Amino acid sequence: MSLLTILDYAGIALFAATGALAASRKELDLVGFLFFAAVTGLGGGTLRDIILGRTPVFWVLEPNYILICIAAGAFVFFTADRVEWRYRLLIWLDAVGLAAYSVLGAAKGLAATGSPTIAIVTGALTAAFGGILRDLLANEPSVLLRPEIYITAALAGAAGFTTAHMLGLPIVVSSGLGVTIAFALRGGAIHYGWTLPRYRPRPGRPQDEAMNRGKGQD
Amino acid sequence: MSLLTILDYAGIALFAATGALAASRKELDLVGFLFFAAVTGLGGGTLRDIILGRTPVFWVLEPNYILICIAAGAFVFFTADRVEWRYRLLIWLDAVGLAAYSVLGAAKGLAATGSPTIAIVTGALTAAFGGILRDLLANEPSVLLRPEIYITAALAGAAGFTTAHMLGLPIVVSSGLGVTIAFALRGGAIHYGWTLPRYRPRPGRPQDEAMNRGKGQD
Amino acid sequence: MSLLTILDYAGIALFAATGALAASRKELDLVGFLFFAAVTGLGGGTLRDIILGRTPVFWVLEPNYILICIAAGAFVFFTADRVEWRYRLLIWLDAVGLAAYSVLGAAKGLAATGSPTIAIVTGALTAAFGGILRDLLANEPSVLLRPEIYITAALAGAAGFTTAHMLGLPIVVSSGLGVTIAFALRGGAIHYGWTLPRYRPRPGRPQDEAMNRGKGQD
Repeated sequence: MSLLTILDYAGIALFAATGALAASRKELDLVGFLFFAAVTGLGGGTLRDIILGRTPVFWVLEPNYILICIAAGAFVFFTADRVEWRYRLLIWLDAVGLAAYSVLGAAKGLAATGSPTIAIVTGALTAAFGGILRDLLANEPSVLLRPEIYITAALAGAAGFTTAHMLGLPIVVSSGLGVTIAFALRGGAIHYGWTLPRYRPRPGRPQDEAMNRGKGQD
Repeated sequence: MSLLTILDYAGIALFAATGALAASRKELDLVGFLFFAAVTGLGGGTLRDIILGRTPVFWVLEPNYILICIAAGAFVFFTADRVEWRYRLLIWLDAVGLAAYSVLGAAKGLAATGSPTIAIVTGALTAAFGGILRDLLANEPSVLLRPEIYITAALAGAAGFTTAHMLGLPIVVSSGLGVTIAFALRGGAIHYGWTLPRYRPRPGRPQDEAMNRGKGQD
Repeated sequence: MSLLTILDYAGIALFAATGALAASRKELDLVGFLFFAAVTGLGGGTLRDIILGRTPVFWVLEPNYILICIAAGAFVFFTADRVEWRYRLLIWLDAVGLAAYSVLGAAKGLAATGSPTIAIVTGALTAAFGGILRDLLANEPSVLLRPEIYITAALAGAAGFTTAHMLGLPIVVSSGLGVTIAFALRGGAIHYGWTLPRYRPRPGRPQDEAMNRGKGQD
């Protein structure tokens, strides 16, 4: 089993587990757990395959991926109540999945197109889309709108892998580098609260704020 | 006209009507009704075709499907105010559409891949995605987060059809079986409030709840 | 550079700018600006290509489109605080993008299928989907649910272009006609508050309202 295959299975199982943990926060039934596990685990790779034109998508060609999601979802359904720190667990599993998928998505984008730009975009997209979909369908505040490093970590991991790979480094080195960069950035964001500078409307113009708020109700 | 074609047209018209009924709850204009009718009626089959790699999707190849949605949306626009029980009507029409589409989606997935696993997944996905999209775009509480049997009914209908079809039963029997199973389960959920057991955080650990709630605000 | 290419670049840059302006309202970081710029700028055309089966999608084949979005997003990040009327700017840029994309989407749909029905649908879908996705991911009230002419303008622009093109008029005339119709309708909706008649539950039946509201909580 190749390193990329391991990253693939790990990313899917971990994202599937985060989907099931979101279902546990909503107190859904077993089928709800499996649905959120499958959508979160398979969503990013599905969008990647569709955009690259590699259809039928990966889990139609290899239904075992669905079984991984079912196993992860059922495992969480029967064990989540033993974990007192479910939300922490969700965001750390999500961080590992994000790191694995940023490299895997970049590798697939590079293999399909040869373009480093597309590799970085498909890496970030594969890594981030499952979690975006999970938050959207679970009606939870999207990670997109939080002031945390998230997509940035996926972009950096994908860029690290792509650069190392284009320089001719062995796949185990380039993959390891990408995963490490993405996980370090996302982990630092979770643990230390790392952020990038946020856009702020220019101070000293309170009427600007008020106008925008008023106009927003048009 | 084959039985599957009838199920196809019926599923689209009924889902389109539920989309238009959602538009009536939002008091949109005629174009809003037609938009929600088209998205709800065509959404599930569009995702199914994209995932299976059968593009251009069905309604691009056969634009009459769009006309069915326009007819259903316009009919609801001009008649919905005569119905005093619009919300009941929406969920019952949705139940019939769900039953029709769980079988149709499974049949298309089976024809495209030969895999019963994929057939069941595409059946459930075709049946459920239109309604999920409708609720998401209309900003209504998603059926995914309600404690009702919904995706379960679609899965069971798709599984019933697929099993009967693999056993060599005639298409009219296997289709009828799948539609009946899905409609009976979903109808029971609507009428009798049938549910599956929901996940509940273990009782007697109130600090778990509190911790999760606090952490959820991170 | 052909007229359709100019419309294409203009539509993408303008929609990307509206995505970045939405990010400014959420006070995101630079990567958040670029993400919303890319999703809003590329979303409509991506869905159009997927539905028509023209994959890999346009920006995978021509990564320069991504650079346009990055440039537009970064420009807004560094200049938006100088604009006191950001929300007005967003909706007017969105109107120009809508007009450009309704014609471009119709032209691509017509080229791919030859069907005027499909051309009108892909025109409206290409023009409206980026903004729908932007509002959905930014958790802002969707333009779909506002009583304004929006999809109607895109449909009218696409229909105007398609009709003129089928009549054999030169591309510059048919494109100009479509853009003018869409922009005039949408601009009138913004400036004068033009609306279509909305659906209203029949007056004099207060119990209908009450029942629906009660049932809505089922």
